[in-house]
Amino acid sequence: MSAGGDKILVAQGGGPTAVINQSLVGVALEARRFAQVAHVYGARHGVRGIIDEDFVDLSQETSHNLELVANTPSSALGSTRDKPDVRYCQEIFKVLQAHQIGHFLYIGGNDSSDTVRIVSLEAQKAGYPLRCLHIPKTIDNDLVGNDHTPGFPSAARFVAQAFAGANLDNAALPGVYVGVVMGRHAGFLTAASVLGKKFPDDGPHLVYLPERTFVLAQFLAEVKEVYARFGRCVIAVSEGIHDASGTPIASLLAKNLEHDAHGNVQLSGNGALADLLCEEIKSQLKIKRVRGDTFGYLQRSFSGCVSDVDQREAREVGEKAVQFALRGAGDGSVAIQRTGAYAVDYALLPLDAVAGKTRVMEDAFITPNGTGVTDAFHAYLRPLLGAGLPDAFRLRHHPVAKLLHPGR
Amino acid sequence: MSAGGDKILVAQGGGPTAVINQSLVGVALEARRFAQVAHVYGARHGVRGIIDEDFVDLSQETSHNLELVANTPSSALGSTRDKPDVRYCQEIFKVLQAHQIGHFLYIGGNDSSDTVRIVSLEAQKAGYPLRCLHIPKTIDNDLVGNDHTPGFPSAARFVAQAFAGANLDNAALPGVYVGVVMGRHAGFLTAASVLGKKFPDDGPHLVYLPERTFVLAQFLAEVKEVYARFGRCVIAVSEGIHDASGTPIASLLAKNLEHDAHGNVQLSGNGALADLLCEEIKSQLKIKRVRGDTFGYLQRSFSGCVSDVDQREAREVGEKAVQFALRGAGDGSVAIQRTGAYAVDYALLPLDAVAGKTRVMEDAFITPNGTGVTDAFHAYLRPLLGAGLPDAFRLRHHPVAKLLHPGR
Repeated sequence: MSAGGDKILVAQGGGPTAVINQSLVGVALEARRFAQVAHVYGARHGVRGIIDEDFVDLSQETSHNLELVANTPSSALGSTRDKPDVRYCQEIFKVLQAHQIGHFLYIGGNDSSDTVRIVSLEAQKAGYPLRCLHIPKTIDNDLVGNDHTPGFPSAARFVAQAFAGANLDNAALPGVYVGVVMGRHAGFLTAASVLGKKFPDDGPHLVYLPERTFVLAQFLAEVKEVYARFGRCVIAVSEGIHDASGTPIASLLAKNLEHDAHGNVQLSGNGALADLLCEEIKSQLKIKRVRGDTFGYLQRSFSGCVSDVDQREAREVGEKAVQFALRGAGDGSVAIQRTGAYAVDYALLPLDAVAGKTRVMEDAFITPNGTGVTDAFHAYLRPLLGAGLPDAFRLRHHPVAKLLHPGR
Repeated sequence: MSAGGDKILVAQGGGPTAVINQSLVGVALEARRFAQVAHVYGARHGVRGIIDEDFVDLSQETSHNLELVANTPSSALGSTRDKPDVRYCQEIFKVLQAHQIGHFLYIGGNDSSDTVRIVSLEAQKAGYPLRCLHIPKTIDNDLVGNDHTPGFPSAARFVAQAFAGANLDNAALPGVYVGVVMGRHAGFLTAASVLGKKFPDDGPHLVYLPERTFVLAQFLAEVKEVYARFGRCVIAVSEGIHDASGTPIASLLAKNLEHDAHGNVQLSGNGALADLLCEEIKSQLKIKRVRGDTFGYLQRSFSGCVSDVDQREAREVGEKAVQFALRGAGDGSVAIQRTGAYAVDYALLPLDAVAGKTRVMEDAFITPNGTGVTDAFHAYLRPLLGAGLPDAFRLRHHPVAKLLHPGR
C-alpha cells in the first residue's frame, strides 16, 4: 500500500497460552513469502503498545530464532488486559494511519476480536484501506463459530494430566481431592479433567461446570455417595460455579462462615473456592482427609506440556490470517472448523459473528445429572490433546491368603 | 529362609512421587534373579497393610506390566500416613513372623526409615533372622547421608518448569506472582524454582526458604525493589516459611487481618499462604496486579513430568536393596552418593544414621542475603533434572521509530 511496500502489524492480547507464539511466528514467516510485504511490525503488550507506538520489526528476526520463539509458551510480544472502547480504537487507528499499516492482525479471544471489529469500522468510516483480521486464541475455548480455539488443547492436556496424577495420588492415600480449574463461563477446560481416566473407578468422579447451577446440598450428597462407593473422591470444579441467581459459590461459602471470613481477600483468582469447598466437605461430611488445589496460572503457562495438534493449528491460523489478508478475502476472524476425525480447515468469519459472543459447552457434552461429560465430549476432545499422552498402569490383584486373621 | 524358599515383603510409605514405582519394580524384578527367592509380597497401603495382612503376590506379575507400572507415578501398592510406634512395630513383626518373611524392604522417607529401624530392633530382640532395608524416597530431599533422594529430581523438574512458565506469563502481563512450593523444613524444592532461569531479568527474582527466618517488612521491601527495577516480580515461597520463633507465616498474616479471618480454615495444605502474601503486597505496596498459586499436589503427582535420571536412580535403589538384603550386607538404609559430575554409587548406611533425622539446605547453597541460591546449588541440581528440559527463547529487540510522538 505504502510506497515502500505493505506493512503488517501483529499483536497479542489477553491471557497467554502455550502456543500463542506459534500464531505470531505463523504470521511473521508466512508474510515473508509475499513480495509486496516490506515489514511485519509487532506491537508490544497488545493494543497498549499500539497506542504507545511501541513497535518492534519482526522482519529483522532470523527464521531460526522465530522457530524457537514459536515453541516458547506465553506471549513473546507481551500482552495486555486493556479492553478498548470506540475512543481507544480511534487512537489505535490514528497510529496505524501514521505508520501506513495496511494489515492489522490481532491474536486474542473475545475482547480482542471486538477490538478488531471496531478498528475495522473506523477504517471504513475514514475510507482508509486497512485489512483487519482476528486470529483466535483462548484456553477457555469460548469463541463461537470455532470447533475449538488454539491454546485450549494444550491447557486441556495440562488439566487432563494433572487430574490423572491427582487420581493416582488420591488412590494411594485415599480421601477427597478438589481441583479448581479456570473458565468463568465455559466449562470446557474443567471437563477436560476426565480425559486421563482409564479404569472404571478412576477419578475425577464428579465434575462441576459453570453451565449448570451449583447446589451445595446436592454437591455434598454426591461427594458422600462417591466416597461411600470408592472410599475416596476426586472432584473437578470450575472457578465459575454459581448458584441459580448467578452468584459465585465462593462468595456464598465465605458468608456461610458467619463472619466476613476473607476480609479484603478477593474470592476469585486465588485459592479461596477450593479451600471453602474442602471446609464444607470436612465439616458437613466428617471426612478427615480432604485436600484442594487451585490450578491457577500453571494450567496456561506451564513450560513443557503442549499438544502437538495445538501447536500445528496455532501456526496455521497465523499463516491463514496472512493469506486471507493479502489475497483480498476481506476483514474477518479466522476460525477452525473440523472436517474429519481428525482433520480441520480454516474459514474466515465476519467479525461481528465472533466478537463479543461467548460459547459455552453444548448440552450434548454434559451428562443429564450434570456431574460428568458424555462420550461425545471424549470423542470431541481426545484428538486435540495430541500424541504421547501419559498412560497409567496398575498392578493386577494377586491376593495372598491371610494367616493370622483368615476371616478378616 | 522358609522351607519353600525366601520371602521378601516390600511396601511404600508416605507421600507418593513420580518415580516411587521404579523402586518397587526394581525390587520385584531384581528378586527374580535370586534362585532362593520364592515370593515377593507387596503390602497394600504401607505398614497399615502389614498390620491388616493385606498382601499381594508380586511374583505373579508379568515383567511387562511391572515395567509399565514403573513408569506410572504415585504408589502402585498404595501408601499410608501411619507413623508406627514401638507397639505398632511389634504388630508388624508378628505378621512378618507368621508369613515367614525373611526380608522387609520399605520405600519411604524419614518416618519410614524409623519404622524399619524399630522393626529391625524387634527382630533382633526376638532372635528372628529378618533383614530390614529402607529404600529412600521423598520429594523434600531431606534424608541425611544422601546426595539427594529419589522423587526429588522429578518434583524439582516440575517446579522449575512451572516457574519458567510463570515467569514468561508474568513478563507478558507484568505484575507480582507468588508461587508457594512444598517443603516444611527443607527448601530444596522451593530453591529448584530458579533452575528454569535463563536471561538476567528472568524470575523467580526472590526465593524464600524455611532455612531462613521470614521477616514481612523485609520481604515487602525486597518485592518493592525488584518491582521498581523490572516492573514485575516473580517470587518462590516455601510453605514452611516462619518467623524467628518458628511460627508459620500464614498464622501470623491471618492474625494481621484483625479478625479470625479464616475461621475453621486450616493454614497449611491449602491456598491461604499465597493468598495472604498477595493481600499484603497489594495493600502495603499498592501494586494492582498480584497473583498467587499454591502448587499443591500437582508438584508431586503430575503425570508427565519426570526426570530420566530420577527414574534410573529410583530403579537402582530398589535393585540395590535386594542385593544388599540377599548378599548379607546387613540391615540399613540405601543411600545415593555422588561420585562424579555426573555419576552416583549406592551405599548401605546404618538405620540409625538416617532414621528420624532431617537434612536441610546447606548454607553454601543459599546466597548471603537469603533470597536466592548460589552457583553451587545450580551445579548440584542441574544434572538431576535430566534430559529434555524445556528452553525459553525471546524475540530480539529491533525497535521501530515512533512517528506520532518521537520524544516518548
